[in-house]
Amino acid sequence: MTISDIPTPALIADVPTMERNISLMSGYFASRSCKLRPHFKAHKTPEIARRQLAAGSCTGLTCATIGEAEIAASVSKNILIANEIVDLDKCRRAAALARTVALTVAVDSVVGLERLSAAAMEAGVTIDVLIDLNVGQNRCGVTPGDEAVALGRAALGRPGLRLRGVMGYEGHAVGIHDRAEREAAVRRSMNLMASTAKAFAAVGLTADVVSGGGTGSYDISSQIEGITEIQAGSYALMDSDYGCLGMPFEQALFVLGTVVSRPVPERCVIDAGHKACTKDHGHPSVKGMKEATVLALNDEHAIIAIPPTSVIKVGDRLALVPSHIDPTMNLHDRVYALNGHHVVGVWPIAARGYGVA
Amino acid sequence: MTISDIPTPALIADVPTMERNISLMSGYFASRSCKLRPHFKAHKTPEIARRQLAAGSCTGLTCATIGEAEIAASVSKNILIANEIVDLDKCRRAAALARTVALTVAVDSVVGLERLSAAAMEAGVTIDVLIDLNVGQNRCGVTPGDEAVALGRAALGRPGLRLRGVMGYEGHAVGIHDRAEREAAVRRSMNLMASTAKAFAAVGLTADVVSGGGTGSYDISSQIEGITEIQAGSYALMDSDYGCLGMPFEQALFVLGTVVSRPVPERCVIDAGHKACTKDHGHPSVKGMKEATVLALNDEHAIIAIPPTSVIKVGDRLALVPSHIDPTMNLHDRVYALNGHHVVGVWPIAARGYGVA
Repeated sequence: MTISDIPTPALIADVPTMERNISLMSGYFASRSCKLRPHFKAHKTPEIARRQLAAGSCTGLTCATIGEAEIAASVSKNILIANEIVDLDKCRRAAALARTVALTVAVDSVVGLERLSAAAMEAGVTIDVLIDLNVGQNRCGVTPGDEAVALGRAALGRPGLRLRGVMGYEGHAVGIHDRAEREAAVRRSMNLMASTAKAFAAVGLTADVVSGGGTGSYDISSQIEGITEIQAGSYALMDSDYGCLGMPFEQALFVLGTVVSRPVPERCVIDAGHKACTKDHGHPSVKGMKEATVLALNDEHAIIAIPPTSVIKVGDRLALVPSHIDPTMNLHDRVYALNGHHVVGVWPIAARGYGVA
Repeated sequence: MTISDIPTPALIADVPTMERNISLMSGYFASRSCKLRPHFKAHKTPEIARRQLAAGSCTGLTCATIGEAEIAASVSKNILIANEIVDLDKCRRAAALARTVALTVAVDSVVGLERLSAAAMEAGVTIDVLIDLNVGQNRCGVTPGDEAVALGRAALGRPGLRLRGVMGYEGHAVGIHDRAEREAAVRRSMNLMASTAKAFAAVGLTADVVSGGGTGSYDISSQIEGITEIQAGSYALMDSDYGCLGMPFEQALFVLGTVVSRPVPERCVIDAGHKACTKDHGHPSVKGMKEATVLALNDEHAIIAIPPTSVIKVGDRLALVPSHIDPTMNLHDRVYALNGHHVVGVWPIAARGYGVA
């Protein structure tokens, strides 16, 4: 099977490029005390996670949902759900999972502690918890410092729970294009987390795990004393948004489409729209064609401006470079793994969507 | 099972409201010569399509892809793929489908005609074709008038193909908020299509089918002489974008989420982000809470501004009103059908994604 046999629209991954990205990131962490915990949410694909872990320097995997964690358990026995879980049923699923993996869950409320504790007790397991800090993203998380210490104390002695430390995601900072500005914003966030970890230690609360960071900040956050692991995910496959940051990772993931129409010389239309490639971080670009511009991404079509002299014709194939990888992966059930033009694997995006366990 | 038992995030459909929408639309077409061909792409859910057809006044179903058409064949034996199909393999799938359903496909190029014809010949079937017109959307489609007539002539006598008429989607016009402006733009587009159909007839080309329109234009396009069917889809479930147009259809589809965090009085966070509810037509609103505003839709979180005095707490449930239904349905594998708080069905969104036949 070659690239020409793939039914479009389809996700295609350039395996040698992906392997270089994975190797480069693991290499970065090899000689550091801070380690990598690859974020599974970026691709939701067990085969890719397996390769990330095999490259070394990893503490385990990061997940965003219990559904992801259940799937990720097939490749890692150490999983952090870097997100709040509060539904009773989901807390029970987490407890069930904790029977077979070392499971850590982020918590930012007493209700969250109570429900996880009850589920852990019921299942006779221990769930590790990290106090989730708002380090500037203004999403979930308690305020670093006293409020975090108070919730850490509330976690102590809860049956079925074991406090391990803190986490915080500097999501507002990882995408800042200017390196100096990004570095300053990331440092502010990570220093808040590191100082909260110190405050934990000062009052006898465990803070062995201090977890944060992403692809846009891995080489900043990992250098701040006290940060123990980085939750980067996008680095393996990349997207055009992260591609602007001047990082050493190369684009390895594309959305393959077929030209279904070239109604006028200056425009062609491919069958990959925003049900195949999201536009929440802007329009995709066209791989290898600087002279082409995506004008619109409709449900099932990308409308592309091309030079009138272009030889592109109906039936040809083009590939889009997604601007945001995580939600784009989530649109598909499989990714075609390529080495050159050869399909070397068809990998299930097993954690896509919201499956019911 | 009640609404409280549904794992979040999840799509929920209010069945009585949906049934009212469906009945209202079918009633509109009951006494007209122009009929309805519900667009399956809006929901990709056979159970909803079945109800649309059962309500009457329909010529069949509209689909956007061959994958949708293969699934839709379980509920309708008359299917229009209102989109170009040019890949050899997809043309073969279309031909295979034409063995069991009356299949019509839109065409806007000679290559498209050639490939469909070859596949139809190979399978020993007849595929009906409509010449796709660019009526102002500037996506696919040939220019109405002479160019369309020339392609119509090119379709004549192609073995395995039968020319039926023309289609054109006034997608640039269906969402214009001002009714008078919308009406003017829709009329311009549909008049281009109607006059092209007349030009077909004048040179002896068949134009029995003149297909266009959408939920935002059904009551305009259907009144233009010569238009034979309307491809509306969103009316059954609706979204907040179409909800601004002052139409008689009510919102029947929501994304249910759980409050996972209320870190400060003025903000809560639910577990339904843009992997559960797209934002390509803007942020969703919060059902029944005019005082709440979605500030951001991240991968797995909606960050919602609420009055500091709100009683919302961790573990509560909120529902989002999607701004664009088609891609939001495509994110999920099932929709929970509700009557009041009772789950009366769990309907597979069987045509979601890009399955391989």
